[in-house]
Amino acid sequence: MDRLFYPRAVAVVGASRDPSKVGHGIFRNLVRDFDGQVYPVNPKAEELLGRRCYPSLLELPERVDLVVIAVPAHVVPEVVREAGEVGVPYCVVISAGFSEAGNEDLERELVRTARKAGVRLVGPNCLGIINARIGLNASFAAELPPPGNIAFVTQSGALATSVIDWFSSGDVGTIGVGFSKFVSLGNAADLDFPDFLEYLAGDEDTDVVVLYVEGVRDGPRFLDALSGCAGRKPVIVLKGGRTEAGAEAVGTHTGSLAGSGKVYEGLVEGEGGIFVEGFEEAFDAAKLLAKAGPPTSDRVLIVTNAGGGGILATDALHELGFELPEPAGDPSVLPPEAATGNPVDVLGDADAERYRIALEEFADPDRYGAVIVILTPQSVTEPVKTARVVVDFAEGFPGPVIGVWMGRHSVALGIRVLEEGGVPTFPSPERAARALYHAARWAEML
Amino acid sequence: MDRLFYPRAVAVVGASRDPSKVGHGIFRNLVRDFDGQVYPVNPKAEELLGRRCYPSLLELPERVDLVVIAVPAHVVPEVVREAGEVGVPYCVVISAGFSEAGNEDLERELVRTARKAGVRLVGPNCLGIINARIGLNASFAAELPPPGNIAFVTQSGALATSVIDWFSSGDVGTIGVGFSKFVSLGNAADLDFPDFLEYLAGDEDTDVVVLYVEGVRDGPRFLDALSGCAGRKPVIVLKGGRTEAGAEAVGTHTGSLAGSGKVYEGLVEGEGGIFVEGFEEAFDAAKLLAKAGPPTSDRVLIVTNAGGGGILATDALHELGFELPEPAGDPSVLPPEAATGNPVDVLGDADAERYRIALEEFADPDRYGAVIVILTPQSVTEPVKTARVVVDFAEGFPGPVIGVWMGRHSVALGIRVLEEGGVPTFPSPERAARALYHAARWAEML
Repeated sequence: MDRLFYPRAVAVVGASRDPSKVGHGIFRNLVRDFDGQVYPVNPKAEELLGRRCYPSLLELPERVDLVVIAVPAHVVPEVVREAGEVGVPYCVVISAGFSEAGNEDLERELVRTARKAGVRLVGPNCLGIINARIGLNASFAAELPPPGNIAFVTQSGALATSVIDWFSSGDVGTIGVGFSKFVSLGNAADLDFPDFLEYLAGDEDTDVVVLYVEGVRDGPRFLDALSGCAGRKPVIVLKGGRTEAGAEAVGTHTGSLAGSGKVYEGLVEGEGGIFVEGFEEAFDAAKLLAKAGPPTSDRVLIVTNAGGGGILATDALHELGFELPEPAGDPSVLPPEAATGNPVDVLGDADAERYRIALEEFADPDRYGAVIVILTPQSVTEPVKTARVVVDFAEGFPGPVIGVWMGRHSVALGIRVLEEGGVPTFPSPERAARALYHAARWAEML
Repeated sequence: MDRLFYPRAVAVVGASRDPSKVGHGIFRNLVRDFDGQVYPVNPKAEELLGRRCYPSLLELPERVDLVVIAVPAHVVPEVVREAGEVGVPYCVVISAGFSEAGNEDLERELVRTARKAGVRLVGPNCLGIINARIGLNASFAAELPPPGNIAFVTQSGALATSVIDWFSSGDVGTIGVGFSKFVSLGNAADLDFPDFLEYLAGDEDTDVVVLYVEGVRDGPRFLDALSGCAGRKPVIVLKGGRTEAGAEAVGTHTGSLAGSGKVYEGLVEGEGGIFVEGFEEAFDAAKLLAKAGPPTSDRVLIVTNAGGGGILATDALHELGFELPEPAGDPSVLPPEAATGNPVDVLGDADAERYRIALEEFADPDRYGAVIVILTPQSVTEPVKTARVVVDFAEGFPGPVIGVWMGRHSVALGIRVLEEGGVPTFPSPERAARALYHAARWAEML
C-alpha cells in the first residue's frame, strides 16, 4: 500500500470550483499541504487553484498512484474503470449513495469494476485517507492532524475529524501526540480492517494502531490480521455497538454486522488487541503507548506531594490489578514527616529538588515497571521545574513515567514541559491508571 | 455557621511579613479579596500590608467572628483560649504538628481548650476555608475559585487547591461552573463532615455538595447528616481508600479509619448520596447537577451529526441502564437519509437549523428526561450556531440538555457558548453518560 499512502502524484476526480463542494475541499487540502503532483480532473473547468484541469483520467500527463473520487455515485464505476485503464492502483471513493443508501447493486458493480480494472478501493462513502507525515490529506477533513506515530483506522469518518480537531488544538495535554495515518473505511466495499492491519503491522511510521470498529465482515480474517499486527505493536480497539441498543444504532449507520461487546472483547483480547470502552480512553491509552511504551512489569511506584492524590491513584491501580510494593531506599533522604512507603509522599511543601531526590532514591527500575508522579499546586510547588526533573528522570527509566499535574491554571505550563519531553500526562490519577492498565495488558499478552 | 462563612471581621494570628510563610499568604488573600475587616495579629510587627498589627487577640479593637491561626502547634491552644476570651466563635487552625505528626496529646489539649473557651474549630492541619461568593479566602490556596453553587468539603487540602486551579483556568469546559464554599477539614479534631453537611443542607448558596472522604469517625452521625443533606440537594462522595491498598495509604495520610469501597458505596447510596470512583467523575457529575439538575426520567434522546458518536453514546447509556425509546414526531422534517430513531442522526452535513428542527420535532419533554446533543466538526458543521440553538432549546426543556462537542480546536467556541448558556458539556459521550447516570441515581433515590 505504499503507493496509496506515499503517492508520487494524485488526481482528484470531481475537483470543483465551488468551495462548498467536498471535491473542492479535497483538492485544496492536497494542493496546500502535499509536496507531490496534484491533478484536478473536471471536464467543466480549465483551471483550479492555479492548476490546469484535465477532462478525464485518460488525459493526465503522467501516471498517478492515487485517485480521489468525489463525483455522483452512478458515475463512480466508470471513473474507476478509467483509473484502471491508465494503471492507477488505488482509488479513494468519497462519494456516498451506495449500500449505506440502499444501493447495494451499485456498490457490487463498483467492486466488480475495480476488480476487473486491477484497482483497489478505499470507501465508498468515506472521509478519505491521510498520511500526516508527508502532508497527504486526501480527505475532506479541514486540516491535517499533527504528524506522529499513531494510526487511526475508523468506520466513522466523523470520529476521525473529531480526533484531528482534538489533537490539532494545541491543548497542553495533546502536545507531542501525533498521527502517522488516518483511514476512513466508509462502507469498506473492498479494502477493510484486515488489509490495513496487515500494512500497518510493517509500517515503520506507525507505533500504535487505534481502530474504531462498528462491525467486521470476515471475522476470522479480521482476527488473524489483528493478531499479526498486535504481535508487533499495540492495537487499541474501540467497539461501537457493544450493547444491544448500540448494535441497533450500528445497523442504522453502516448496515454492517455488529456483535455483542463481551464477545468482541474476548476475541480482541484473545488476539492481543486492547479492548477499550470509550473515546477518551482509547486515545489516553494510545498517547501513553505512543510516548512511553508499555510498563516493564505490573509493579508501580507513586510519587506525590498530596496524600489525597496518592490515595486515589492507589485505589485506581489496585482495582486494576497493579501491585504497589514498598520501595527500598533510604527514607532519610526526605524530611521525617514524608511517607516513604508507596505512595512516596514528598509533602505539600516539596520543591522540584525534593521530587528529584525521591525519584532517584526510590524509583528503582529493577523494582518498578512504571512510575506515576502526582503534583497538586500548593504554596511552594514548582510545576515547571518539577516537570523538567520528571522529564530528565524518565529518559533513564525503562518503563513509562507518567505525570498527573492535578489542576489546570497554574500547572498547564508544567504539563506542556512534560508532554514536550515525552512524558504522557493525564488530568486525574484514575485516567493515568486506566491508560497504564491497557498498556500493561498489551505487554502481558505479548 | 454563618459567622464562620460570612464573618464581618477576621483576624489572622501568625500573619507574617515573610512572603514565604503560610501566615503571610492567608493574610494577603483576605486583604486582597475580602470586603470585611481583616486584622493581622503578630507581636513582632507594627504593620503588615498597610494594616496595623496587633500583639494578640486580646488587643483587637473589635470583636471578630473568625480567627485563622498559623502559628507553631504548641502555641495554638493558648491562641484558642484567648479567642474564647474575646468571644470569637470560630477558629480555623492551619498549623500542622498535631495528631497527624503523632502529637495526639496536643490535639486533645487543643480540643479541650476550645470546648472550655466556647470556640469551634476547623482543622488543625488544614488548608482553611473559602466562601467564594463573598471573596473570603481564609486559606493558603493561592486564589479563589470562581463563585457558584457547588460546595467542596475535603479531607485533602491539596485536592482543594487542584480543584481551584482546574476551575479558575478559564478552560472552556469549566466556564460557568463555580463554588460556594470550600472546607479543608484537616484532622477534623472538632468540626467534621456531619457539621458541614448539616449546615450546607440549608445553605441557599449551595445546590450541590462534593465530599472527598478518606475516613469518618462517627459512622452513624455521618450517615445521618448525609441523609439529611442528600434529601435536599445532591451530595457526591468521592471516597479515597476504597481498596485495601488505598486504605493503607489513608492510614499513612490522616490516620483516620478507612473502610472498604463496597461498604461505603452501599452506605452512601443507602442514604441518598452519590458514590463516585474518580476525581474527574466527581466534578463531571457536580457540573451537570449544578448547571442542569437531575433528569426527569431515565429515558434519553440522542441527537447527533455523526453515526459513530451516536453509537458510542448509545452503548454508554445502555450499559448504565438508561432507556432510549424511539421518538414520535414526523421523520419528514429531516432529509430522507437522516435516521429518526434514537439516536436521531441529522447527518454530517447538518447545519444549526437542522439541529433546531430535530430538537423541536423529536425531543418531547413528556417522552424524555434528558437530551444529549452530539456534534463532530465536519465540513459544514456550525459549532457555535448549533450551540446557540441548543442553549435556546435547553431553556424550555425541563430535564438536562447536555452537549458533547467532540474535538477541541474548532469546537472550543461552541463549547464556551454552551457552558455560558448553562448547558453542561463533556468531551466524550461516555463522560456525559456517566455524569447523567449519577444525576439520575440521585433523582431516583429521592
